[in-house]
Amino acid sequence: MPTINRRHALAAGAAAIAAPAIATATAVQAQTAAPAPAAGPGQAPGFYRYKVGDITVTAIHDGFFNRPLEGFIRNAELPAVQAAASAAFLPTTAVPIPITTLVVETGGKLVLLDTGIGNVGAPTTGNWLANFRAAGFDPARVDSIVISHFHGDHISGIRLRDGTAVFPNAEIQVPAPEWAFWMSDERMAQAPEAARGAFQNCRRVFSPLAAQVKRFEPGAEVGSGITSVAAYGHSPGHTAFVVSSGNAKLLYMADTSNHPAFFVRNPDWSAVFDMDADMARATRRRMLDMAASEKTRLHFYHAPFPSNGYVAKDGNGFQFVPAQWSPAV
Amino acid sequence: MPTINRRHALAAGAAAIAAPAIATATAVQAQTAAPAPAAGPGQAPGFYRYKVGDITVTAIHDGFFNRPLEGFIRNAELPAVQAAASAAFLPTTAVPIPITTLVVETGGKLVLLDTGIGNVGAPTTGNWLANFRAAGFDPARVDSIVISHFHGDHISGIRLRDGTAVFPNAEIQVPAPEWAFWMSDERMAQAPEAARGAFQNCRRVFSPLAAQVKRFEPGAEVGSGITSVAAYGHSPGHTAFVVSSGNAKLLYMADTSNHPAFFVRNPDWSAVFDMDADMARATRRRMLDMAASEKTRLHFYHAPFPSNGYVAKDGNGFQFVPAQWSPAV
Repeated sequence: MPTINRRHALAAGAAAIAAPAIATATAVQAQTAAPAPAAGPGQAPGFYRYKVGDITVTAIHDGFFNRPLEGFIRNAELPAVQAAASAAFLPTTAVPIPITTLVVETGGKLVLLDTGIGNVGAPTTGNWLANFRAAGFDPARVDSIVISHFHGDHISGIRLRDGTAVFPNAEIQVPAPEWAFWMSDERMAQAPEAARGAFQNCRRVFSPLAAQVKRFEPGAEVGSGITSVAAYGHSPGHTAFVVSSGNAKLLYMADTSNHPAFFVRNPDWSAVFDMDADMARATRRRMLDMAASEKTRLHFYHAPFPSNGYVAKDGNGFQFVPAQWSPAV
Repeated sequence: MPTINRRHALAAGAAAIAAPAIATATAVQAQTAAPAPAAGPGQAPGFYRYKVGDITVTAIHDGFFNRPLEGFIRNAELPAVQAAASAAFLPTTAVPIPITTLVVETGGKLVLLDTGIGNVGAPTTGNWLANFRAAGFDPARVDSIVISHFHGDHISGIRLRDGTAVFPNAEIQVPAPEWAFWMSDERMAQAPEAARGAFQNCRRVFSPLAAQVKRFEPGAEVGSGITSVAAYGHSPGHTAFVVSSGNAKLLYMADTSNHPAFFVRNPDWSAVFDMDADMARATRRRMLDMAASEKTRLHFYHAPFPSNGYVAKDGNGFQFVPAQWSPAV
């Protein structure tokens, strides 16, 4: 377990004071996404708790973004993509791509695997903080934030649009190769105009506390019972995590696959988000093969909430089988 | 829409006064089923809201009972049953069979389709009332209760063990052939000793207000936009319901199939609960075939929560495809 450095908490300033404003902003966004019927509240809060051995994990839902199928997948014709959507009983024009992070309670610490998109995303997102609180958690009590990669829907929750640090007492751990790529001004200058925003967002999130961000080499332990696993391709340093306790194991896939209905079912398909399509495909195949053989429980960042289940081989691809929801944790 | 008769509300007596006692009993049971970790509450409340056209429906989870696989299915060998459990990543000794009812808000009325097992079931059940309240509902505001069949996990929620009516202002509608069968003293006398309890439970639930229970012939409309559909076999008068609004439709399957991992996947398998196995099998095949062709959204009483999705043909059976969870109602 790395040493916790809380100095950046001071730099983060008045985050605790700003908390009510955060909650209000989130509630407004939640309301936009899910208007409550007159008879009662809208949807149940988007959290789901389960055990991995002695470790308790909680999936926290942020919301979804609507992704048009046209232009979604680089190497498949639109009718094939629409057929995959149809087979999953999803709409065939645009599909809701859900966003769900994982909270890990381990070794007396509260650890976040990714943070959602914060308050800088589409109106259908931005519910993470409300759901995190509904699950009984307090952002000020977060000890450690571990990031899989630097895409906006994973890191933006660290800092509100107005600059406030949401987790004033948390250390931040990031994959070293992600930091090296995204924080390089040379890389940013080389990037096409459309990709520039992603680089700028990394600076928005990390620059105020750059000296305190801990960079780890994938393979390192990042928390008690949490091991990082190189899963490059989706982004240069994209990293998965294994949470293990006794004989129990959960593999946090991050974006090794985007929505399972497309990329678990057809592991050779490449989402436009995969920065190195060939490497991402090889990583995806390798990890899905291993998970299917070992019947490993998986968390997919972009699977339907509560975003966990198993994969089974099926033809040239895999089927995603959601774990059965249980009222008992 | 049938006329609402509230006279039995008077017979039900002091149910409103007894409400806090009900809540306490339920909370205690919920606690037994799902102990809360120190960090916060346990599981998110078990309700899930969605739209069927202009109608809002809410799935309400009651809990689950653990069913040993041995002796579960009449016409399949244990290894085949275990293989089906394995394919669904369920345990292969006993599987949790979930219980989830449906609340329908239609035509200004609050209508329940079945009521769960109340406080007379196993400790892993009995969460229905807490989840119903968490969804913003009040038992005293229920206008109508519509019952699919008279098995205990569908009707027992109407009345607490101590005799209290839980829904003091609700009319009760039941399939006429269910009433004729279960309320017949002759049938009860003929029943084997092990089946006698089910007959007695029907008397416990219904006798105090027998004159006010409205019996309908399957095929009848039982609420605004809710049509009953004969689905005999699981029990003599087992009835499904179609909820429809505009072009949208939801088919409430009740127990036409028990857990989909077994009986949607293998529609010819007969659960020990199916009272007329051949008729139940024919009904199941017919309804699943229709639902697959028409891509009808389905609610299964015993599917994993939130218990709704679709079926697609697959070999000699069907695959159950859960509808994607959405934070937006």
